[in-house]
Amino acid sequence: MSIAVDPSDVAAALTDLIAVVGVEHAQHEPTALTSFRDPFSPTDSNDHRPALVISPATVEEVQEIVRLAARHRVPIWTFSQGRNNAYGGPAPVVGGSVVLNLRRMNRILDVNTDRATALVEPGVRFFDLYDHLRAEGHRLWSSAPDLGWGSIVGNALECGVGYTVHGDHASRICGMEIVLPDGELLRTGLGAMTASSAWQAHPRGYGPSHDGLFKQSSLGIVSKMGIWLMPEPECYLSGGIAVPRKEDLPVLIDAVRPLLLDGTIQNQPAIGHALFIASVMDGAPSRAEIYDGPGPVPEHVIESVAEQLGLGRWNMRFALYGNEAIVRARLRRVQAAVSHIAGVRVLEETYAGSEVHDRATSQNAQVQAGIPSLDLMKALDWYSGEGGGHLDFSVVTPLRGDSATVVHAMMDRMMAGTGLDWDPAMILSGRCMINVAQLYFHPDDVVAAHAAFAIAPDLIREARRLGFGVYRTHVELMDVAADQFDFADHALRKLNERLKDAIDPVGILAPGKQGVWPAHLRQADVTPGAETR
Amino acid sequence: MSIAVDPSDVAAALTDLIAVVGVEHAQHEPTALTSFRDPFSPTDSNDHRPALVISPATVEEVQEIVRLAARHRVPIWTFSQGRNNAYGGPAPVVGGSVVLNLRRMNRILDVNTDRATALVEPGVRFFDLYDHLRAEGHRLWSSAPDLGWGSIVGNALECGVGYTVHGDHASRICGMEIVLPDGELLRTGLGAMTASSAWQAHPRGYGPSHDGLFKQSSLGIVSKMGIWLMPEPECYLSGGIAVPRKEDLPVLIDAVRPLLLDGTIQNQPAIGHALFIASVMDGAPSRAEIYDGPGPVPEHVIESVAEQLGLGRWNMRFALYGNEAIVRARLRRVQAAVSHIAGVRVLEETYAGSEVHDRATSQNAQVQAGIPSLDLMKALDWYSGEGGGHLDFSVVTPLRGDSATVVHAMMDRMMAGTGLDWDPAMILSGRCMINVAQLYFHPDDVVAAHAAFAIAPDLIREARRLGFGVYRTHVELMDVAADQFDFADHALRKLNERLKDAIDPVGILAPGKQGVWPAHLRQADVTPGAETR
Repeated sequence: MSIAVDPSDVAAALTDLIAVVGVEHAQHEPTALTSFRDPFSPTDSNDHRPALVISPATVEEVQEIVRLAARHRVPIWTFSQGRNNAYGGPAPVVGGSVVLNLRRMNRILDVNTDRATALVEPGVRFFDLYDHLRAEGHRLWSSAPDLGWGSIVGNALECGVGYTVHGDHASRICGMEIVLPDGELLRTGLGAMTASSAWQAHPRGYGPSHDGLFKQSSLGIVSKMGIWLMPEPECYLSGGIAVPRKEDLPVLIDAVRPLLLDGTIQNQPAIGHALFIASVMDGAPSRAEIYDGPGPVPEHVIESVAEQLGLGRWNMRFALYGNEAIVRARLRRVQAAVSHIAGVRVLEETYAGSEVHDRATSQNAQVQAGIPSLDLMKALDWYSGEGGGHLDFSVVTPLRGDSATVVHAMMDRMMAGTGLDWDPAMILSGRCMINVAQLYFHPDDVVAAHAAFAIAPDLIREARRLGFGVYRTHVELMDVAADQFDFADHALRKLNERLKDAIDPVGILAPGKQGVWPAHLRQADVTPGAETR
Repeated sequence: MSIAVDPSDVAAALTDLIAVVGVEHAQHEPTALTSFRDPFSPTDSNDHRPALVISPATVEEVQEIVRLAARHRVPIWTFSQGRNNAYGGPAPVVGGSVVLNLRRMNRILDVNTDRATALVEPGVRFFDLYDHLRAEGHRLWSSAPDLGWGSIVGNALECGVGYTVHGDHASRICGMEIVLPDGELLRTGLGAMTASSAWQAHPRGYGPSHDGLFKQSSLGIVSKMGIWLMPEPECYLSGGIAVPRKEDLPVLIDAVRPLLLDGTIQNQPAIGHALFIASVMDGAPSRAEIYDGPGPVPEHVIESVAEQLGLGRWNMRFALYGNEAIVRARLRRVQAAVSHIAGVRVLEETYAGSEVHDRATSQNAQVQAGIPSLDLMKALDWYSGEGGGHLDFSVVTPLRGDSATVVHAMMDRMMAGTGLDWDPAMILSGRCMINVAQLYFHPDDVVAAHAAFAIAPDLIREARRLGFGVYRTHVELMDVAADQFDFADHALRKLNERLKDAIDPVGILAPGKQGVWPAHLRQADVTPGAETR
């Protein structure tokens, strides 16, 4: 759903905005703008395309840009690296927005070895911080998500996940600097005290804490962010638990829950489907070789592929860190906890922490040590051919086996008519899990691509009926997602709108992001929230 | 600093407000109000006294009260148990406020064993939840601060600390229900979805996160709060590290930092001064027996008392949890990390997790297992005689030995002229520590009491000059504390004021809390912030 922006407004703003960053850092030709389109939207879709992309290099330029945008009343959308793929990539909710590309703001401003923290600008990628830590000889590990090309700041603000002890990136943010929509510069936590010595050390200041306001938010542009790192462990074990049967999944989840709750397993494990593991394995058969009938791969084929490739029907990876004695004691507890599952296999790769960078070659061993890669890109081509895409449906449920059963039954039922492959993955933490269903299609296959986008709102609504909320969505789905948060006559939406009006009264910043619209765009006919109001 | 409230406003509101809760739950006689005074303010002080205390029992009553207060434009102050001692107890910033006492809202609404969470009302004390978990046979441990009579909600909202793995209470909040100043009811996180199944399991919902706004805040009244618990461990070790010399402190801090950063030590250890330990020991000599000269106890006396009682000059407690193998492996790592300190002693008490409730008798072993007590009250009488009080000065510094040295040198220098005893304690987490200096006096000794309140603003300002911010203060000191957060021309204050105006436009709720004033009280002559603006 996009909202027309008056082209004359954009045109009038153009000269001013380009002057801020310089013509070499502004792109408005249609061909140049193509690379800032959502790469996975159906190729016949013109929604969510920017009118102009500008790339500031400094905080002062960002301040000037928001002031100009307010004067011209032009909507602005920000991305840090724009790798928010499956959720819209760099694309704004409102087509015709001026998009701020923050890739040039890519300085690593501080790494503190004592306290294992970093302060970075939004353009810093997981690759960049990793390389920097290695180059400078810091014995610190950063956390990375499945693909390492994204922005550390952007990922944490969108509540993305990684797989070290600091995998819940949004909760490891420590201190932000923010350009507010009126151009004021704010620092949160102890950074609000000039020359504070503990900005990245303690997550709060004095009085209310504001970091949460700027996550999945249209209230400010984060220009610096602190993040916690982990010290390189003496010993690192990248583990796996493979279970043979489809119905082993809830048993496995319930078996490992106590280990996550008590910190035996310290990172965020992920559970992957046999086909997904196959899709990124060297030498595995292709999707077409496995099954060329209609619809998704049937269960008996999945089981035979798993057996053939030596995989579990479900494959959980996890990591243990510590000195060798602690790691071995942890592992024995993991082994004991799952030993009742018939046919279970517990796998391990163990490294000295200092050697992992040179020795770890598997994606699991790498990502659980925070080593970024792009290996998982292979899955897209495997499922849908070169240039394949996906749309992610991601609900948070309690960490219980029966929650996974309910979500998967719902997905099986609702996806049946679409003909799409979909891959259920679960990212576990102590009390909840994120159930990510990747819906695969090729953007050029407009029937399949539209089928994915068409079913997604229904999935969101049906999950709500089962008691489950989404944690993140594609820009196309933000209104319907926000609509589900309906307690007390949508009190949350009303608060978000009040905050929006107070902090961004002109309503220039990321209108529609996460379903929060500025006052002038809040008419019933453009706010799909009408359906539940 | 208090601001006069028009007595006729309060009088007009009285009848309406009393009608909401019933006359038996309203107190306005001066004698009854005495128990809602700050117990440690100088006894000759009349600041910060409420005009009326009312005790609602339901969310609906709270909603009605805020609506009435807005109509009458009467300032409201809320406490949950009012045990915020050393920071003002139940007392409001603005004398003459109507105080909401939430002690009657004391239901434990949910305990979830699978995911180790609880949902409680604000009147639930640490004692209450502990007793409930025991009575119901839940093998779950809650976290408690030094004194167990406080409110779980109130303590977490004020960023209080405890000593289990969930000792940083403010960061273990998971989901809030809040009465906003206009009477609207909000649920945060996944609770914003009616019938969500994961409200206490996942700390965020969809879009911006709001929990932080309601910590140390005047933006709403928290009526329900989720909190994380820990599963009872198989094995629990309450440990101690005693070091003999004053100058061992920075060495000790730097030695344990890696253990905190990598999770070998999982809880928040505390480091106590020999005299403080003596003050709560059975059979220890009295303060007067130790030293009856002028000013605080001299160093050579401290050392001899420590030796006589078998204490370290500094005494750190810490806890290890897990199965026995993991706990022993952790302990060996702790022992190795401090073995270079001459004369160091590592102490341990080890329990089966299930036995600790019956067997642990020391305050350290109890509090690190979340067993609440009031044992530490003894310190107040020991230092200043029966009915003794204290004022706490609490700065956050990086977790570094040299930070402690700098803070203590500052304290020694600035406290010298006051003649007051003061006790430096440190609560450690991975990257920072809270340095709590308890300034002791008897409220009836008005010279000493005023000396404490007089030096406190200077301590706050001087700490800022050294790069350290306070995390919490007495109501009397909120303006000066907020003044120190000066980055970018007090951008934080400006944001807080904008949020205040948007969410509490009439300005009824807790005016002046943490230095945030509603618009009509923001005149330069009543906002001491003028000093740095």
